[in-house]
Amino acid sequence: MPTYVAVCGASAAGAEQLRLAEAVGRLLAERGAVVVCGGLGGVTEAASKGATGAGGLVVGLLPGESREGANPYLTVALATGLGQARNVLIVTAADAVIAIGQGWGTLSEIAFARRLGRRVLGLDTWRVEGLETVATPDEAVEKALGT
Amino acid sequence: MPTYVAVCGASAAGAEQLRLAEAVGRLLAERGAVVVCGGLGGVTEAASKGATGAGGLVVGLLPGESREGANPYLTVALATGLGQARNVLIVTAADAVIAIGQGWGTLSEIAFARRLGRRVLGLDTWRVEGLETVATPDEAVEKALGT
Amino acid sequence: MPTYVAVCGASAAGAEQLRLAEAVGRLLAERGAVVVCGGLGGVTEAASKGATGAGGLVVGLLPGESREGANPYLTVALATGLGQARNVLIVTAADAVIAIGQGWGTLSEIAFARRLGRRVLGLDTWRVEGLETVATPDEAVEKALGT
Amino acid sequence: MPTYVAVCGASAAGAEQLRLAEAVGRLLAERGAVVVCGGLGGVTEAASKGATGAGGLVVGLLPGESREGANPYLTVALATGLGQARNVLIVTAADAVIAIGQGWGTLSEIAFARRLGRRVLGLDTWRVEGLETVATPDEAVEKALGT
Repeated sequence: MPTYVAVCGASAAGAEQLRLAEAVGRLLAERGAVVVCGGLGGVTEAASKGATGAGGLVVGLLPGESREGANPYLTVALATGLGQARNVLIVTAADAVIAIGQGWGTLSEIAFARRLGRRVLGLDTWRVEGLETVATPDEAVEKALGT
Repeated sequence: MPTYVAVCGASAAGAEQLRLAEAVGRLLAERGAVVVCGGLGGVTEAASKGATGAGGLVVGLLPGESREGANPYLTVALATGLGQARNVLIVTAADAVIAIGQGWGTLSEIAFARRLGRRVLGLDTWRVEGLETVATPDEAVEKALGT
Repeated sequence: MPTYVAVCGASAAGAEQLRLAEAVGRLLAERGAVVVCGGLGGVTEAASKGATGAGGLVVGLLPGESREGANPYLTVALATGLGQARNVLIVTAADAVIAIGQGWGTLSEIAFARRLGRRVLGLDTWRVEGLETVATPDEAVEKALGT
Repeated sequence: MPTYVAVCGASAAGAEQLRLAEAVGRLLAERGAVVVCGGLGGVTEAASKGATGAGGLVVGLLPGESREGANPYLTVALATGLGQARNVLIVTAADAVIAIGQGWGTLSEIAFARRLGRRVLGLDTWRVEGLETVATPDEAVEKALGT
């Protein structure tokens, strides 16, 4: 049974955050984890690219009622029709969450995941009391996989 | 881009309905479709078994906050935490829906799918005005894939 | 503690269905029930008008992220942002459901309500095996309130 | 048309936070606002008590499929069956949000509300970059009502 890890982050991300996200996706795929994400652009697309480039499986949970706007690196693209409420689905489906970058959507995912008792690793993201931060993609992935 | 087809049906199903469901799953996989389902037992498990047995990809959208109870034939098992509301997700994620057998959950999926404009094929299921019925798994899959 | 009764029906309804819906809303309010509905036009608006005209309390659960399009007879108008998935909310919040008229959305509410074990009374609506039908607004309301 | 204001906060709250919440509820009711909340105990119950004590209208959006556990000060108690995802509903239904106290659920509501563009006022709550904080219930309510 694979571990499911959500990678969360904003569509509007800097070059360094995109580099981190792609590395996280690649490392998760190399370790056999299923990547769950919001399926659109920015951090999510970079993580998807990293994971599928390494032969991994990526699930994108899209906000709309169609797959329009899905990034091209998803193994499975699921239209949810729930709008921003799909953020809750992303972290519910995950055993652990890696959050990259700022953005209110990302903070909502961090908070929901902690509310549900999921482990959350923060990489260049919000500074929030009680959020576990990590310094590198390697550390994020190792901790997410509990190794 | 694959076509996404939901296979809907009750946990409590007869032997013939399970046979139909497994055949539908197999045919969908052979035609390259992604199967979306509720991820538990009965019709859903039979369709999952048929699809993964033929090398296909099966997504199960589970009602609980954990993957507990997922059938063993899913490629991807997603905990939604939405309870019965996850039925809406199953049909929203699909381009077409194949409904097998009775059950109020199945009827809710038929109705939601039609409300969203998805094509629905009924195989030994509810008799409802405006629902397109088919006689065989082959006919269901051909029509679901628009061929 | 009041009883919560959902009144479900299509936006596009005939004059007779609107008359039935308004009577149902009025009778529910006179009996002290809280009316829950989708908050838009047609059957829903007629039921809302009947209920608030009789001094009752009406809750509308709207599909969008704003209260735009709400009918003017709601005591409380709640934007859900869930699209059609809000149909599940309407029946989950209710102790019993009165369905009036055809429409796939209405059928989805009938089926979900039965799936959740809510009592459903059908008034000039879908003919579905296992659905309890009634002949008049009085009968619908009496049965919904379990009297 | 009244303004809808969500009051968010944890079930486990200190005496001072409960006092703040009750004052917020009372002031909102005196100004004619509809209070939206999670419907359970702690901050939510205190706000509900303050609002209904002042003749206001309070809507509680409960996580379960029944009204069990609802606090006794709600005008309308709605079972959603969505679990923690109902937090998204609370802030979607509101024009502005007042957050009191710590708790991951509260942070998820702050973040979702900001993501949706709702104004959020923080009163003795999380310190998060970009969150507007206020010092008193009066200030919270005045700003929430845009006056």
